[in-house]
Amino acid sequence: MLFNKVAILGIGLIGSSLARNIKENKDANFIAIYDKNKKNLETASSLNLGDIYTSNLSQAVTDADIIIFATPVCSFEELAEKTALYAKKGAIITDVGSVKQYTLEKIEQHLNQTTGHIVVGGHPIAGTEKSGPENGFSLLFKDRWCILTPSSNSTPEAIEKVTKMWEHCSMKVDTMTPSHHDKVMAAVSHLPQLIAYSIVGTVDDLEDYEHKEIIKYSAGGFRDFTRIAGSDPTMWRDIFLTNKKTVLELIQRFVEDLIALERNIRWDEGDKLHSLFTRTQKIRRDIIEAKQHQPEAEKLLTEKLKK
Amino acid sequence: MLFNKVAILGIGLIGSSLARNIKENKDANFIAIYDKNKKNLETASSLNLGDIYTSNLSQAVTDADIIIFATPVCSFEELAEKTALYAKKGAIITDVGSVKQYTLEKIEQHLNQTTGHIVVGGHPIAGTEKSGPENGFSLLFKDRWCILTPSSNSTPEAIEKVTKMWEHCSMKVDTMTPSHHDKVMAAVSHLPQLIAYSIVGTVDDLEDYEHKEIIKYSAGGFRDFTRIAGSDPTMWRDIFLTNKKTVLELIQRFVEDLIALERNIRWDEGDKLHSLFTRTQKIRRDIIEAKQHQPEAEKLLTEKLKK
Repeated sequence: MLFNKVAILGIGLIGSSLARNIKENKDANFIAIYDKNKKNLETASSLNLGDIYTSNLSQAVTDADIIIFATPVCSFEELAEKTALYAKKGAIITDVGSVKQYTLEKIEQHLNQTTGHIVVGGHPIAGTEKSGPENGFSLLFKDRWCILTPSSNSTPEAIEKVTKMWEHCSMKVDTMTPSHHDKVMAAVSHLPQLIAYSIVGTVDDLEDYEHKEIIKYSAGGFRDFTRIAGSDPTMWRDIFLTNKKTVLELIQRFVEDLIALERNIRWDEGDKLHSLFTRTQKIRRDIIEAKQHQPEAEKLLTEKLKK
Repeated sequence: MLFNKVAILGIGLIGSSLARNIKENKDANFIAIYDKNKKNLETASSLNLGDIYTSNLSQAVTDADIIIFATPVCSFEELAEKTALYAKKGAIITDVGSVKQYTLEKIEQHLNQTTGHIVVGGHPIAGTEKSGPENGFSLLFKDRWCILTPSSNSTPEAIEKVTKMWEHCSMKVDTMTPSHHDKVMAAVSHLPQLIAYSIVGTVDDLEDYEHKEIIKYSAGGFRDFTRIAGSDPTMWRDIFLTNKKTVLELIQRFVEDLIALERNIRWDEGDKLHSLFTRTQKIRRDIIEAKQHQPEAEKLLTEKLKK
């Protein structure tokens, strides 16, 4: 048993998937689930994800051995300030936020060595475009990476316990600095997500095309972007606002590259287009070789489709 | 039996999937498969997709009742010119090209009422990021749309036969003008594809990040774009060059919208971000309601993952 009492703050897709794992893995005697949203608490209760369901923060965090922040990241500051009033000395504070530098600064303003709390930042890189406790499932984390971003305040014992918790969810755990994490994630996650939102907005705005036609023929490629752009609006708003500097730099780079491609098309530079498209094909192959491409899902589908 | 002899020119993903269907549906007595690439012919032969496999165009098209252009679209002009030398009077000429205005102009320069051939443009909206005859499968077209773009040269009988051929592949068939087709496809397919190529290039170029890390953490969102950007380079080069005007206009619109988003992030306009992200979520819901989201694949995956 890793912990006696666990407090999960925010029972959305990630929080609920983690709760399922902690229960199945018998990693806690008692799971307290906190959420401001009554409907989420009711859903969590009907799914039997924990032991108490409350929108009273004090009730959730009092006596907890580990407190897991799993709400949209802009709420972390207020949540940390209030948590500091009730969290016991020696409690581990961790989170699942997709941005690490901003969030850990906000948490550590209120929960730190001086207050007697041990902070270990974390980010399980897993998710679907669906949100809410009803969409969580315990295999969400399987074979995915979890990045921990410990600070000088994190003790080896606390890091080990957080590592074990995620490893028990079948995650592979890696460690890096918060700023490096934010740079890598801006490239592999935040920029792609912003582009998906942007293109779905552009296509939806076109006055020449009927909305109906766009929906009807979306299988042509647009559909894949709408899946990504169907993700939780609040979570993503917070990510862009809190990883602002890195995201803005990347947008500039991307626009430069797109304008270059535009020019290649305008001037019939087919060889340059072909050479980029061949390079991107190679990257896809590298990902497949690194088994980062959801092999299980693709295998299932291929089996079903091939006669 | 719809046809006595069918000639499929180009045995890639689409050509080979169509060949499988024509065979299974008994829509032809004889299937001639033409490809310039000897390896493709060998693969097609080993998969038993047709009756003859040849890189001699005359052998493929002579006496064919229907000749199906299924090569990258920039090759259509040369192919049409040569086909005109051997195709019998009254033969139906159709294609599977993703661009219609340019391709039909090129085909109809050489194959038309005067030469005694009946042209019916077509575009089955289906595909995967994989190319080559070994990746085709007969269910590729199931429940997808096929757009026909008949001209004044197309006879009702020819349109009906081409419609039936695709309906037998379980496609839903729609009709529109070539220019309208190209506008709709630029929005739902060509722009998204170009953006995917562009972003994968941008991320791969970043000097601050190791290639290794990008591959490792690609599950964060980047992976979805690499799947799209893993598509056939030649096919896509040809699409962008032949639907140039519409694609260039759309890139401009997209860049404008992206710059507006960039500004929202820079000036902390969280409400504007949230409002766009909520709108894109609604579009996703519309697509799911219109059953254009590969329900079979998603259902399979959900069943497998949910305990």
